[in-house]
Amino acid sequence: MAKKGPKTTVKDRDRRTAAKIEELAAAVAKSALSGREPAFDVPTRALSNTIWDKKAGILRMGKAAQERELFNLNQAKGFMQSLLHAAGVKSLIEQDKTLSLRAMFYKGLHTIAGTSEKTFADQDESDAVLEDLEVTLGALREELHIFAKKAGTMVGNITIVDSGDEIDCRRMGSGGYAIPSIVEPDVIQFKKCDAKFVLHVEKNTVWSRFNEDKFWQEHNCILTEGGGQPPRGVRRLLARLNRELGLPIYCLLDCDPWGHYIYSVIKQGSMSLAFESERLAIPQAKFIGLRAADYERCNLSDDVQIALNDNDTKRARQIADYPWFRDHKGWQKEIATLLSNGFKMEVESLITKDISYVTETYVPERLRAKDWLD
Amino acid sequence: MAKKGPKTTVKDRDRRTAAKIEELAAAVAKSALSGREPAFDVPTRALSNTIWDKKAGILRMGKAAQERELFNLNQAKGFMQSLLHAAGVKSLIEQDKTLSLRAMFYKGLHTIAGTSEKTFADQDESDAVLEDLEVTLGALREELHIFAKKAGTMVGNITIVDSGDEIDCRRMGSGGYAIPSIVEPDVIQFKKCDAKFVLHVEKNTVWSRFNEDKFWQEHNCILTEGGGQPPRGVRRLLARLNRELGLPIYCLLDCDPWGHYIYSVIKQGSMSLAFESERLAIPQAKFIGLRAADYERCNLSDDVQIALNDNDTKRARQIADYPWFRDHKGWQKEIATLLSNGFKMEVESLITKDISYVTETYVPERLRAKDWLD
Repeated sequence: MAKKGPKTTVKDRDRRTAAKIEELAAAVAKSALSGREPAFDVPTRALSNTIWDKKAGILRMGKAAQERELFNLNQAKGFMQSLLHAAGVKSLIEQDKTLSLRAMFYKGLHTIAGTSEKTFADQDESDAVLEDLEVTLGALREELHIFAKKAGTMVGNITIVDSGDEIDCRRMGSGGYAIPSIVEPDVIQFKKCDAKFVLHVEKNTVWSRFNEDKFWQEHNCILTEGGGQPPRGVRRLLARLNRELGLPIYCLLDCDPWGHYIYSVIKQGSMSLAFESERLAIPQAKFIGLRAADYERCNLSDDVQIALNDNDTKRARQIADYPWFRDHKGWQKEIATLLSNGFKMEVESLITKDISYVTETYVPERLRAKDWLD
Repeated sequence: MAKKGPKTTVKDRDRRTAAKIEELAAAVAKSALSGREPAFDVPTRALSNTIWDKKAGILRMGKAAQERELFNLNQAKGFMQSLLHAAGVKSLIEQDKTLSLRAMFYKGLHTIAGTSEKTFADQDESDAVLEDLEVTLGALREELHIFAKKAGTMVGNITIVDSGDEIDCRRMGSGGYAIPSIVEPDVIQFKKCDAKFVLHVEKNTVWSRFNEDKFWQEHNCILTEGGGQPPRGVRRLLARLNRELGLPIYCLLDCDPWGHYIYSVIKQGSMSLAFESERLAIPQAKFIGLRAADYERCNLSDDVQIALNDNDTKRARQIADYPWFRDHKGWQKEIATLLSNGFKMEVESLITKDISYVTETYVPERLRAKDWLD
């Protein structure tokens, strides 16, 4: 990175997060000094505390919370771990550095003085404490200076600024711009966008087909992929493109429960990260295919059929029962057709029609006819 | 992609590959017309036909080959599949398009006329036929216009041209340039390189730490990662940077059998792709850490220890017995120390010393002292 992004914004965000950590610490200290038990509330991250906000079209976290107390044998460790990671985050902010989830585990790991007990048993324990910290502080993981493994690529009619570097996504060759894990406005700014929409595809192999056929040039759009279930960085970038630039997000996903689930997470948010939905979910996202009816409509051969197994059938029924799909005629029909077909289909199977059928016929026709599920 | 790369080179490579396919087809046709059985030789891809070329420092494929005959009940299907995919590749070349392995499976898939038999049972069968085709034609998969899932990112003091787009890897922000699957010279050209070496790290989370600390700026290098075991695109790019620009390749990998294996594949090539070694292997690649002796040398705490399990121990012994490690005192000692330690260590565990210990102390010290294994 040649230069840093606008410093004021960075400081604003960091100042807010650091203040929240200080507040948490001060509250704990205050209760201890006043003779009360040191404790703080952690909002409950569980399905039972997940609310479907129909009007907003996103999943939200409810108001349930659990107290975490120092003088409670079951909670003392969690209490200590939370404050340990909170202190770690504060030092990251002060140094203006970021760390991976794995590295945070190592950062917090040590033997507790006078015992042979480790602060964390494994990374899972550390990750869970960091998620608790996110909801307790009301700060995204990215605001805590923590990132996960990145995946996903972008090209198209947009120029962005990443950490002070201007990146013209129209000139990114066959490889593309690798979407980072942290894409908050102080890291990534949108500079010049001519694109009228975003086409998000599931797999990077399909993305390569679209990039090679210059789909984004011909249709004036941005082309992204998220390596299957898109990581938070990709979801957040799509959400920002949707909200800040008003770009519609079209998702080209497989015709199977996994594709439907990916769409559901992009659109409504995920149950485990319901507290993130306001920043990550894209209620206006549209599912542009593949559709179960395409087998007949596109006159596909039986080569494209992959038989549903028991797990697929079970997952399809679960997804059909999601509150946001339950009252949606289009989705009910889609999943019913998938189940009555008895087979799933991948976007890549459209190659059986022609190498560029998907880029030259399938997607352009769907866009023209406004033929999608939302 | 705004423009195409130099057209002549593309055509040269494609003309060569197409000619090889025509040659194969002509030979088959000729033997059929002259009353002999249609057949061709497929070099054997197996450990038994893998030779360790000590002088060149790479694995090579031996001379063993199997005949594939049309009028042999066991070989007729493979014969037909090979010619089917050969024809598919020829059409890709003629259309100047590329396809993923998955899409090639679909492209070749159909029901054989007059039967209920499919041309391919599954993608594995199709992939194996494509590998056979590579060795039969003596053409890389990339030359057959076929790509795999991509992974890996690059930043640093180099400007490249990818499909006609100039990409300054010094100005790629926090995300980086996503390394494509096909990086042959007609797709990617090196334009202006100031870097003196390449630091290749195993994981993209570690890569982010190095990028954020501007390691490549301070040490004038190129920084790459391959998402664990690097895919062919990344290996080929590293090999080209090494051979064409003379850049040393330093690999920062975990201290475990998996890290050692990744290094072995980068350096000598893999047994399953021995026929690719000449283009993919980098005999001069250096292993810059993590080292088993670092536990004491760097005064690490026991927090970094991950106990070796039975499988780790078995793999470590297998790797120690590789011909290229067997006679190498440094590697014998390295693996012996790993085994006597009884634990493995990850690069990310260096965070227990300090957030930037790995970028500011560990790697610079190793480079300065020329302290590596090769």
